Amino acid sequence: MEAQIAVKQDTKTTLIKTGMDLMLQKGYSNTGIQEVLTASNVPKGSFYHYFDSKEQFAVAIIRYFDQICSEDLQQILSNRERSPIERLRDYCEYSKANLVAQECSKGCLIGNLSQEMSDQSEVLRKELSFVMNKRRDTLAACIEEAQRLKEIRSSTSAHKLAEFFSAAWGGAVMMAKTVKNSESLDVFIELMFNNVLI
Amino acid sequence: MEAQIAVKQDTKTTLIKTGMDLMLQKGYSNTGIQEVLTASNVPKGSFYHYFDSKEQFAVAIIRYFDQICSEDLQQILSNRERSPIERLRDYCEYSKANLVAQECSKGCLIGNLSQEMSDQSEVLRKELSFVMNKRRDTLAACIEEAQRLKEIRSSTSAHKLAEFFSAAWGGAVMMAKTVKNSESLDVFIELMFNNVLI
Repeated sequence: MEAQIAVKQDTKTTLIKTGMDLMLQKGYSNTGIQEVLTASNVPKGSFYHYFDSKEQFAVAIIRYFDQICSEDLQQILSNRERSPIERLRDYCEYSKANLVAQECSKGCLIGNLSQEMSDQSEVLRKELSFVMNKRRDTLAACIEEAQRLKEIRSSTSAHKLAEFFSAAWGGAVMMAKTVKNSESLDVFIELMFNNVLI
Repeated sequence: MEAQIAVKQDTKTTLIKTGMDLMLQKGYSNTGIQEVLTASNVPKGSFYHYFDSKEQFAVAIIRYFDQICSEDLQQILSNRERSPIERLRDYCEYSKANLVAQECSKGCLIGNLSQEMSDQSEVLRKELSFVMNKRRDTLAACIEEAQRLKEIRSSTSAHKLAEFFSAAWGGAVMMAKTVKNSESLDVFIELMFNNVLI
């Protein structure tokens, strides 16, 4: 029984991982369920055993993607060997290196799906909105720590600084993905740390 | 003959306008040619008289959208009754008002399609990349004017400031579209003009 549950979990996770890769490359509308099943080597008909609909499948993918990204973000932002500002910069350099390693393709699934799906699916929009706000709040906690330590002296609230950071980074990733170079990320890092988080 | 050409031009423009509205709402993949023809009241079969493919149709839509946006941007940025910094702020307030008027839906077609299509169509990616760079250069010219007039004293190049402005605004629009409020745009305006363009 336990082994059976483990297999089921594996199949579900395989579908989610494959779907995530495909949606990162091709978006939601252009990713077919059959394509996910074929790429996962899972028999047709199994899909609806695990997911009620393509929309619910995308919800599971968004949560899985967010889990991976949140772990990375939390790990970098809780590194006590670095100051809060250094940690924020480490996060940018880490994300930039990842994007450059994949030749500025794919970008961020949250950003991609939010542009494509926010007006088409209220279920997905709410999920994406939740993830965006959560990321901003995680960044805000680190910015607040920097303010407490007087590493940032700006009187602007940590919430606003994080909102700006988060949106501007998302825009820089979008631009890098489109022009296929990382100039926008380099400029973000330079101006965000020299002019805003001061 | 002239009348016939005029009708043809009208039909082509009708198809482009209808396609633009649909792609703004639903993205590229989810917009069907048949749907565009039905909404435009144009007979089936006419489409390929005007466009070689859906991809070429999207190129025409991107150019049309860019033409409208560039005219708005140029008009605001060439207003001699306002200083360069005031003009940049006017542009943000104008764009924000447009987005709020449509309840933060649709967003920017260039941003939307760049996230969805940059890795799927090299033809569309190049077109979107061209528009993004052109917009940045238009903003840079206004920022340079502000620097010449000592309205901006930052020693950062106008090119970099415009790259940051452009990417961050795109990200703020993306966030507003997802969370369905304009907080990210308000924060952009506050921090961009108080901390960056100084």
